[in-house]
Amino acid sequence: MIHETIYLYEGRTDVNLTTYVLSDSGEMLTGKKRPAVLICPGGAYLACSDREAEPIAMAFATMGYHAFVLRYSVYGGEAFDNHFVGMTPREECRYPAPMQEIGLAMFYIKEHAKEWLVDADKVAICGFSAGAHNCAMYATHWHMPVITDFLGKDKELFRPAACILAYCISDYVYMKEHADRHIGARELFDAANLSYLGSKEVSKEQLMEVSPARFVTAETPPTFLWATAEDEVVPVQHSIRMAHALADEGVPFELHIFEEGRHGLSLATQASSNCKAQINPDAAKWVGLAEAWLHKRFSIKFED
Amino acid sequence: MIHETIYLYEGRTDVNLTTYVLSDSGEMLTGKKRPAVLICPGGAYLACSDREAEPIAMAFATMGYHAFVLRYSVYGGEAFDNHFVGMTPREECRYPAPMQEIGLAMFYIKEHAKEWLVDADKVAICGFSAGAHNCAMYATHWHMPVITDFLGKDKELFRPAACILAYCISDYVYMKEHADRHIGARELFDAANLSYLGSKEVSKEQLMEVSPARFVTAETPPTFLWATAEDEVVPVQHSIRMAHALADEGVPFELHIFEEGRHGLSLATQASSNCKAQINPDAAKWVGLAEAWLHKRFSIKFED
Repeated sequence: MIHETIYLYEGRTDVNLTTYVLSDSGEMLTGKKRPAVLICPGGAYLACSDREAEPIAMAFATMGYHAFVLRYSVYGGEAFDNHFVGMTPREECRYPAPMQEIGLAMFYIKEHAKEWLVDADKVAICGFSAGAHNCAMYATHWHMPVITDFLGKDKELFRPAACILAYCISDYVYMKEHADRHIGARELFDAANLSYLGSKEVSKEQLMEVSPARFVTAETPPTFLWATAEDEVVPVQHSIRMAHALADEGVPFELHIFEEGRHGLSLATQASSNCKAQINPDAAKWVGLAEAWLHKRFSIKFED
Repeated sequence: MIHETIYLYEGRTDVNLTTYVLSDSGEMLTGKKRPAVLICPGGAYLACSDREAEPIAMAFATMGYHAFVLRYSVYGGEAFDNHFVGMTPREECRYPAPMQEIGLAMFYIKEHAKEWLVDADKVAICGFSAGAHNCAMYATHWHMPVITDFLGKDKELFRPAACILAYCISDYVYMKEHADRHIGARELFDAANLSYLGSKEVSKEQLMEVSPARFVTAETPPTFLWATAEDEVVPVQHSIRMAHALADEGVPFELHIFEEGRHGLSLATQASSNCKAQINPDAAKWVGLAEAWLHKRFSIKFED
């Protein structure tokens, strides 16, 4: 395995790509390329959760895919500890930076496809919570100037082959309505907006601009979504709205909503947990379901 | 992840331990220790197969366990390519070296348990084919002078918490009978004996001495076995004989024999394959079965 951390900007260590590039062997693929999955952990644009980083990489590596974890621009660790007191917006965290950094990572992976034996036509993105929002934004914007002009490369370099969204945020207008109704949700929504949009006061136009469910087109890649109906942090309606938009545009998709389970389950097993409530054998089935779905597109072709 | 290769003997690179030590985090176990699995790939004591190395480590890492791959003393790559022509025995490959090297690895892991956050009381061994033979030998000899005197340490340091055996060789007397009946099996048996026992001419006493099914006692750890009934290289009777011995001695064990599937399936998925015949969705279920079995002993305890 090639396991290293690559800094995507000169002079910054916070935005980085951690590689889990599987070893090849004359007994296995003998130089044939493998598909890959680029993982975006969640954390409300305030952090990148370790629980949704390496454990997820292990799951995709077990399926035979190279895995990469992207730590994109987020406000930083202290925000959580201080309950968001005294947060001042930081320009470098602001939209569209986190989405552009998926483009940066995608380009870096494809540039190293030969060295790492990555099948450049089969790189999926997979995000959790805010990381799923970031992936959904990328999935609906990868072909637009916000990505292609930023990096000055041909759009096909940025096309994700598939997208996996775990308890995603798909509609910021709906998110605001939820925060208006639930005092508990307000504090986190404000902090996330301060980090991601630069202010707690956000116009409806701004909220629309970062609502991926409103940007689905035929260019959006096939998408696998899963969530839990009990999620109190990111209501399941976000996954439903995203699925509705994918259905409207005729984009192939698969949706699994488990009846029980809190927000942020990650693998929903002991491998990604710190307490009993994060373990949920029903929700944990998403990994096998995603594997089967991915296999339809990504399966490695073998001779007899 | 701490991913490095450690040479277990000074002046030799062929015997080594590759670490897949999972990253801890304040969001996950916050310094609490994880169980670990030490993996011995197969290869007839002539090689250590890459197909039974990193892909297996990924599967156990996905379950939330640290994983280690041990490359123990084997004859070396050229033997296969030359169809065993001109093989001369090499002293350092000979029994009991490969088994003692499991002890060496076990000691190394336990010595680094604090640094790597390994739960030293929960280190399992897991082998494939000849690697499973090596593990079964270790599982039945870890408390004997051949291990404890070699390393000069207290026997409890060497106790494996559990043992997972994939298409194991458990009885060399039976293996010889099989080789006597099947011309195809003879060449490989002779080559393996040349490497592992130093000669093609092996006495019945020597064959008995390396037959772990004959050494099972109450000190043998709980064991999970799986195999395929169609295996033509290592007949399934080896797994059955080992299970019989475990049952005789009252050692907790679990056995899964799948009706179909060739020898050496490893994960039996695209992650460990180089041809279609190595993919077998039925046999691939062994991973989930082993996870459930291991979970009874190794599950990480969480607060509410």
